[in-house]
Amino acid sequence: MQENNYEFGLSCPIPINEYPNILLAHGGGGKLTHQLIEKLFLPAFKNEQLNSRHDGAVLEIGDMKLAFTTDSYVVKPLFFPGGDIGTLAVNGTVNDLAMCGARPLFLSIGLIIEEGFSIDALWRVVNSLKDSAAKANVKIVTGDTKVVDHGKGDGIFINSSGVGLIEHDLNISPLSIKPGDKIILNGDIGRHGIAIMASREGLTFESTIESDCAPLNGVVQKLLDAGIEPHCLRDLTRGGLATSLIEIAETSGLTINIEETEIPILEQVSGACEILGLDPLYVANEGRFVAIVPYSQAEKALKIIQAESPNRECRIIGEVRYPDKANGGFRGMVTLTTKIGSSRLIDMLSGEQLPRIC
Amino acid sequence: MQENNYEFGLSCPIPINEYPNILLAHGGGGKLTHQLIEKLFLPAFKNEQLNSRHDGAVLEIGDMKLAFTTDSYVVKPLFFPGGDIGTLAVNGTVNDLAMCGARPLFLSIGLIIEEGFSIDALWRVVNSLKDSAAKANVKIVTGDTKVVDHGKGDGIFINSSGVGLIEHDLNISPLSIKPGDKIILNGDIGRHGIAIMASREGLTFESTIESDCAPLNGVVQKLLDAGIEPHCLRDLTRGGLATSLIEIAETSGLTINIEETEIPILEQVSGACEILGLDPLYVANEGRFVAIVPYSQAEKALKIIQAESPNRECRIIGEVRYPDKANGGFRGMVTLTTKIGSSRLIDMLSGEQLPRIC
Repeated sequence: MQENNYEFGLSCPIPINEYPNILLAHGGGGKLTHQLIEKLFLPAFKNEQLNSRHDGAVLEIGDMKLAFTTDSYVVKPLFFPGGDIGTLAVNGTVNDLAMCGARPLFLSIGLIIEEGFSIDALWRVVNSLKDSAAKANVKIVTGDTKVVDHGKGDGIFINSSGVGLIEHDLNISPLSIKPGDKIILNGDIGRHGIAIMASREGLTFESTIESDCAPLNGVVQKLLDAGIEPHCLRDLTRGGLATSLIEIAETSGLTINIEETEIPILEQVSGACEILGLDPLYVANEGRFVAIVPYSQAEKALKIIQAESPNRECRIIGEVRYPDKANGGFRGMVTLTTKIGSSRLIDMLSGEQLPRIC
Repeated sequence: MQENNYEFGLSCPIPINEYPNILLAHGGGGKLTHQLIEKLFLPAFKNEQLNSRHDGAVLEIGDMKLAFTTDSYVVKPLFFPGGDIGTLAVNGTVNDLAMCGARPLFLSIGLIIEEGFSIDALWRVVNSLKDSAAKANVKIVTGDTKVVDHGKGDGIFINSSGVGLIEHDLNISPLSIKPGDKIILNGDIGRHGIAIMASREGLTFESTIESDCAPLNGVVQKLLDAGIEPHCLRDLTRGGLATSLIEIAETSGLTINIEETEIPILEQVSGACEILGLDPLYVANEGRFVAIVPYSQAEKALKIIQAESPNRECRIIGEVRYPDKANGGFRGMVTLTTKIGSSRLIDMLSGEQLPRIC
């Protein structure tokens, strides 16, 4: 975190005349979300846990290391091919813990329900929460229910927070990646976002595109059990592969290069992206992650990841490099080697490509 | 928890023709909230942590005991005399941890913001979160921001989840209370609910009634440090003193008797309640709790609690008794000895007295 020498409480650190009001893009995971985090939240709450800018906080309590994370889910529609808001709420939080290298143990569920929401739909969501928790081997141990007036919510919003146990001494974080590290992707990208978008817009394809929503704690545990020492793990949710890698590159100060030809995308997904004017690199996933591992462990790690996902292509999609020189200094960035061999800089989106995807 | 022999997922356990849709009262903390908990959430997620029906879950990880809790805050208006949604979000969750006898350590903050919400108001809320966390001596270590379309939220909703450390072997729970235990209340009741209501309805009184919103971890720690062994602690939020005591009585199977003359209520608050047709026993508080302690420790505990709150009356308001016989069996209930010496049964509200109070 940059040093903040001013007294936080004296005036709003975001110029009010620049953005007087919250836009959908403030929740999109792109530039405006980052502005809120960097200018508002980090300076206000400053502490070492927050400053790591990871998917969750690593807490040292006594001689134990725990991971702690929270996410709210506001996806629309609530039910979509391959999942619903309940499967998202469990898997999203389980995956954030797994990305800290933790074994997810316990979840909380906080419901904000709009007056008039059907009890039957609530029951279906509760069933999904239950089944997803069983599948991910976590327990839902505490919860809360609030109801807001009709017209002041949108069916149901779910917050899930999670606690996991870190059973190793690795420092899995963007700050740990090194030049030469390989980047492994555990399958084709873009399915979750396109499933939501298609369902929202009533688009139909030859066969239904299903969300990739799935828990990732199993595969992460397999990697750790096999002695792989990942430098960083990151699930590719809001903002997709591109945004996740940019965050890692910026935090680490190193450059990440990925190869377009190595990134698996289902033909149907790339077709839908073309029709909708979306770049699949920025489309959200809910069961995809990158493992950034030492060069020497890359092939072994790939095999483990592939074995956990026999029905899809897992690939080494790129590597970490020394930082590029830009504007007179060195900084972290993401570059893409395109299919025709040229190089393109991957930048963070400033707007909101797909609102309310999770 | 009652045994559930049916397969949860086969059909909705709440008869759809009885309540087809969610009502505001489902979030009120009364009978309908309890129906959701008993019929939907507990059977779906069944585990020992949930079954204790406490303000938070007690987790055993390795040789450590942690408390874990979550709450969403949807209070309206966002800013009110004595606090705002930010102070509530910190103190409410800190207090739930304290009620488990835990030392609150870490909080997460999940924001669901409505498109169009002012950045300046967000900054004021962030300031309150920051100041309240500092006052309660907890760290905000992880967070999440989502934005929903204009008209699909209500300014800002906040979820805060918390992790605390339990440093003793006491089992602080409704199941631990015993006949003869004394019930200590740490101040006058009803201020938070009336402050919200007055602010919402534009009511004015001779002097402004301020919310009692405050952290309770300090006083709980003082009790524990002094060797007090509370059987149960409970903050008096949604549903007020009455609902909290009913929950404890029902879970324990014992009867609780309280003395109307011993319950401090500010004259202004009781006046406002009369005008608004509210029963102060059911009005929400955000800085009040009951400590149910062994008879022999009651006077010492009262002194400690009073010393922490020099500006208000703390009192022993009642005691735990053997269960009353009712309908051919024995069950837990709450009785009130009125000012004129008669006895009245205190029942859980079936409707919603004050929606969106927290």
